[in-house]
Amino acid sequence: MSERAVVLLSGGIDSATALAEAAAASHDLYALTFRYGQRHEVEVAAAARLAAAFRVKEHRVLALDPAAFGGSSLTGAGPIPRSPAAGIPSTYVPARNTIFLAYALGWAETLTARHIYLGITAVDYSGYPDCRPEYLEAFRRLAALATREAVEGRPVAIHAPLLRLGKADIIRRGTALGVDYALTHSCYDPDEAGRACGRCDACRHRRRGFTEAEIADPTRYAPAE
Amino acid sequence: MSERAVVLLSGGIDSATALAEAAAASHDLYALTFRYGQRHEVEVAAAARLAAAFRVKEHRVLALDPAAFGGSSLTGAGPIPRSPAAGIPSTYVPARNTIFLAYALGWAETLTARHIYLGITAVDYSGYPDCRPEYLEAFRRLAALATREAVEGRPVAIHAPLLRLGKADIIRRGTALGVDYALTHSCYDPDEAGRACGRCDACRHRRRGFTEAEIADPTRYAPAE
Repeated sequence: MSERAVVLLSGGIDSATALAEAAAASHDLYALTFRYGQRHEVEVAAAARLAAAFRVKEHRVLALDPAAFGGSSLTGAGPIPRSPAAGIPSTYVPARNTIFLAYALGWAETLTARHIYLGITAVDYSGYPDCRPEYLEAFRRLAALATREAVEGRPVAIHAPLLRLGKADIIRRGTALGVDYALTHSCYDPDEAGRACGRCDACRHRRRGFTEAEIADPTRYAPAE
Repeated sequence: MSERAVVLLSGGIDSATALAEAAAASHDLYALTFRYGQRHEVEVAAAARLAAAFRVKEHRVLALDPAAFGGSSLTGAGPIPRSPAAGIPSTYVPARNTIFLAYALGWAETLTARHIYLGITAVDYSGYPDCRPEYLEAFRRLAALATREAVEGRPVAIHAPLLRLGKADIIRRGTALGVDYALTHSCYDPDEAGRACGRCDACRHRRRGFTEAEIADPTRYAPAE
């Protein structure tokens, strides 16, 4: 019997590739997506497309109270940055990965899943405290103590297969695993048709990744203003 | 200027006492309560009474998606246990404290609060993995790596002042700090008037606590069936 894996699936390139890694490991897949702001509807739709493409056993979309995410431009407070800034980017959401991993841990326990996959990368998101290897290691130590399953000798393994990969390497890896990146969405600021702006941090990382990987970019971009 | 403290406030005896400890430390208080199931309405009301009594700066009630808490009798799946059972109780909710602390961490960062208080105790809840000292220590290590504030040299201190106290000692301590326990609610299975059942684990712990502390129990109990 296949072991179960919970996969954090935002609908972007990284989480799509993490989902493909979990599929390649022959796990039964349980995808977990969070809905917590207007800007996330297109991401949720992308996550649903990916979940269907990878034939997940269940795709759970949890509604999070947007009031919990008041500190970042990603949830509606302040403009999206269009140019790089030093230090931790303003799109950083306080404790977001900790909240997401905590939910994944709870669902994994309910499912008696043995694996959690997430698509964090310390390369492109070096400014995010909760995308660093030492953060991930601390969460693994916490998870080993936090649940009944772990305490009774059945710990959950937390996999971040992209942790050391840049965007181009992620795209190469996912392409080899059969990911159709046309299903994914990255842009922080899409137009009403869901087309990418081409200018935000996420779009620039994405576009550069396809260029460097020498793989055709399937993204639908909005016409330049 | 007073430092800010986020207090996890469920409306029960333990979190009320943790709130009193934070007040005694002269912090500006920010109370955080979660609403995630029908059975919790009376707890949220108790939390609001306590928040008012302690003049918190803000009482935030976050709505959590009940679908995230499918694994426990506390959220509607299965009957509430009326007698003690061995091992981890069925009222245990997978990863609950991890989820709650993750939200507290995020809010603390947004507020630049330097303290988080929570009323966990390893004495009465020894069966809960996420009420043990080693769990708490692991969360502290995680918090030191998880946020921008921590990474930039302003870590948050996580206080669990009741960790080594049994219910009677908690009640004695809270009474000395001025807690009015008539404002609190513990019962897992109250009647429509909000009166305690007197029989569930939470009621039995509570009642025994007041008896052992030799302090009058202000709880409104439903008449015996």
